[in-house]
Amino acid sequence: MINTLYLPELREMLVANDQVELKIFCETLHPSQTAQFMEGLSAADQWNVLRATDLDHRTDIFSYLDWERQIEILATQPQDEVAEVVAHLPADDRVDLLDEVPEQVVEQLLRILPANERRDILRLRQYPEGTAGAMMTTDVVRLAQSSSIREALEELSDSANDLEMVYYLYIVDDDGYLRGVVSAREILTAMRHPNRPLREIMNTDVIAARVNDDQEKVAELVAKLDLLAVPIVDQSGRFLGIVTHDDVIDVVLEEATADAHQMGAVQPLEAPYMRTGLLELSRKRGIWLVILFFCSLTTAFTLEHLENELLPWMVAFVPLVISAGGNSGSQAATLIITALARGDVSLKDWSTVVGREIRMGMLLGGALFFVGLATMWLFPKVSSLGLMAMLVVPVTLNLIVMAGTLTGSVLPLIFHRLKWDPAIMSNPLVAGIMDVMGIIIYVKVATLIVPAVV
Amino acid sequence: MINTLYLPELREMLVANDQVELKIFCETLHPSQTAQFMEGLSAADQWNVLRATDLDHRTDIFSYLDWERQIEILATQPQDEVAEVVAHLPADDRVDLLDEVPEQVVEQLLRILPANERRDILRLRQYPEGTAGAMMTTDVVRLAQSSSIREALEELSDSANDLEMVYYLYIVDDDGYLRGVVSAREILTAMRHPNRPLREIMNTDVIAARVNDDQEKVAELVAKLDLLAVPIVDQSGRFLGIVTHDDVIDVVLEEATADAHQMGAVQPLEAPYMRTGLLELSRKRGIWLVILFFCSLTTAFTLEHLENELLPWMVAFVPLVISAGGNSGSQAATLIITALARGDVSLKDWSTVVGREIRMGMLLGGALFFVGLATMWLFPKVSSLGLMAMLVVPVTLNLIVMAGTLTGSVLPLIFHRLKWDPAIMSNPLVAGIMDVMGIIIYVKVATLIVPAVV
Repeated sequence: MINTLYLPELREMLVANDQVELKIFCETLHPSQTAQFMEGLSAADQWNVLRATDLDHRTDIFSYLDWERQIEILATQPQDEVAEVVAHLPADDRVDLLDEVPEQVVEQLLRILPANERRDILRLRQYPEGTAGAMMTTDVVRLAQSSSIREALEELSDSANDLEMVYYLYIVDDDGYLRGVVSAREILTAMRHPNRPLREIMNTDVIAARVNDDQEKVAELVAKLDLLAVPIVDQSGRFLGIVTHDDVIDVVLEEATADAHQMGAVQPLEAPYMRTGLLELSRKRGIWLVILFFCSLTTAFTLEHLENELLPWMVAFVPLVISAGGNSGSQAATLIITALARGDVSLKDWSTVVGREIRMGMLLGGALFFVGLATMWLFPKVSSLGLMAMLVVPVTLNLIVMAGTLTGSVLPLIFHRLKWDPAIMSNPLVAGIMDVMGIIIYVKVATLIVPAVV
Repeated sequence: MINTLYLPELREMLVANDQVELKIFCETLHPSQTAQFMEGLSAADQWNVLRATDLDHRTDIFSYLDWERQIEILATQPQDEVAEVVAHLPADDRVDLLDEVPEQVVEQLLRILPANERRDILRLRQYPEGTAGAMMTTDVVRLAQSSSIREALEELSDSANDLEMVYYLYIVDDDGYLRGVVSAREILTAMRHPNRPLREIMNTDVIAARVNDDQEKVAELVAKLDLLAVPIVDQSGRFLGIVTHDDVIDVVLEEATADAHQMGAVQPLEAPYMRTGLLELSRKRGIWLVILFFCSLTTAFTLEHLENELLPWMVAFVPLVISAGGNSGSQAATLIITALARGDVSLKDWSTVVGREIRMGMLLGGALFFVGLATMWLFPKVSSLGLMAMLVVPVTLNLIVMAGTLTGSVLPLIFHRLKWDPAIMSNPLVAGIMDVMGIIIYVKVATLIVPAVV
């Protein structure tokens, strides 16, 4: 929602070129709020507002602007000015941003940026999307093992303003290997002994992730250990950078959204819904609609094949019995897929899971048997055929719910075992599989218990 | 997975009562790893291992043990000993833990705990589950406005060891109102001017949440602003405590899992899948299975009512056309529900969303029309009836996909408008609604375009 509260005043200040008032506007509120109040302005006007304040405030507010707006500013405003802001952004956010900007703008910017920043950008850009490397920042305090508490404090004091994460200090040896970590908390506790070397207080049992690790793995590590940041090392153990807690929340949300999309039979979107183009959206939905259509074709063939065994009164209940199978299957699949994603269930639990779901299927199937039987009185055409005919739908419901529960729980486990994403076993796909099973069970039950009616 | 690597050694140390080795075991690794290596031991043995180390290590490792195991230790080990650990746990974790322990154990523990901790627990326990109050911790540095940088540094140095979050200091006035916040980073930067009062460097524009706010709202705030902690105030603005980043990751995961469960037509579980009892699990699934069953009953009534208009060859395609509607509806609902939950779409976007989904429905419906038409040649019974008969299923597919896309996107928006949880519009429920619509459209299309065949 665009906040228009300050827009008239802002426009007036811009027209009057009132640098004093603009500076006050930029420096009074939290940068996220300042960015929000500026939303209604054009990219050029936003940049003119930001010009009124110093580089720190300018970069902070810039980083809270809409993603598209950041990209637009980079592409349209004077290159030497925006380069300053780019150089000042946290290393990981900077790379994410440059990934979205047209390549020629990136090249121009790279030429203007200081050598350090340029090297850093080029290095981080080489890590594939979705890996620890692509999430990490290289702005971090590195100290030698011989450094003292005093030196660490001085280093913290000097660099606190420029770094994204000052709450851990990493101790590396001459070859760049990570030897230990000290938290700012520990430095603060130890500051009464300023001459002690860091070596004596550092934690040597450092938990690190590798640069090629999946971002989900890094997020799990941070979430499980309640860390503010996790160090990232290369294949040989050399220290490269860190991934910070705020990026982890983003990854957790991103992965949960991707899982939800898959479970709803949509290929995960790369950008938010409103920012995804209609063509891409239709591709990501269309592919699954067509796959599921071919699943349903199997159902049509099955039904056509069993046509003669399907008594006329049974037709009305086809959607009822197949949807009961689909629903119980979706429920089981949803539970197992989310439990696998959260680490609540792992492969060695398979027998427990299957045992539970069998009992679950019996309970739920039993419940639907009785509900189904009770409702048969609502259909005089069926109840007039006698008890055996009335039993066809309830018995089918019982069996199909048991089959659905078991199928929905076993398929994600099998997918997980094969190292495929269990979320591909989307609810509609499970439902599609249960459709075919449902029709076969329905017809078999009918031919078994009401031969007299045929 | 239980790690059995150290179990034999641990058991030997326990039998030999080797305090030195046990102490080394407790203090060498990251507490989460130590806890993992102890998983295979009984509660009593675990407690005996923990006894070998100091209170800090003991509390850290204890907090990484399985939740059930922590509860078991509290309930079975000597009360005065466990009370020490309880008093040492972070205030928010402690309250969550005590919520799970039998009430009589809590009362015994409360009697032994120091008065400060006791008051704190009783206060935090009064906030309802799911609110900011229930998530918050009261262990935090509070300083007066007149304090100097030096005093702040000393306070940090003294309390760093005992607090969960030392990276922000909160400045309160004599009446307990929050006046400002200073980060440890800012203190570190300013430490060369030790006599400056905090008043001069503190940020006065503090973003705080209210104690009754929903936990989801607090999590969004922390995620959006990349904060390490957010202050919590009471209705009149008095400072009560903070919610820290690690608890926010937990809430984000919890809410995403609850949404996924609802979208799969399962009432959200309160505990992980493996820890939820079969009866509770069957209740949370059964209630939706029965609701969805009654939805499907409507389909059965509709089909029975339209029986005479449903030509015999059309029966085989009933599941095909209704599942296409259900699938396109689930896709749209999934996208809109996740976009609403992530804040990517809000109510004022409704016309954009509806416009997009109408175009989406035309694209996807058009695609299924052609796919459907092509497959009709696979069914000689239909293709022998001529082109008009062959058009019935494809035209129905086209219309039902358009209807499904629109319904699946509009229903979550309506639910959101009514301030109900849009995720209640689960995929199976959308599919159930589309079943009825699908059958009506199917029959109408047939009577309109193939009157000659009737």
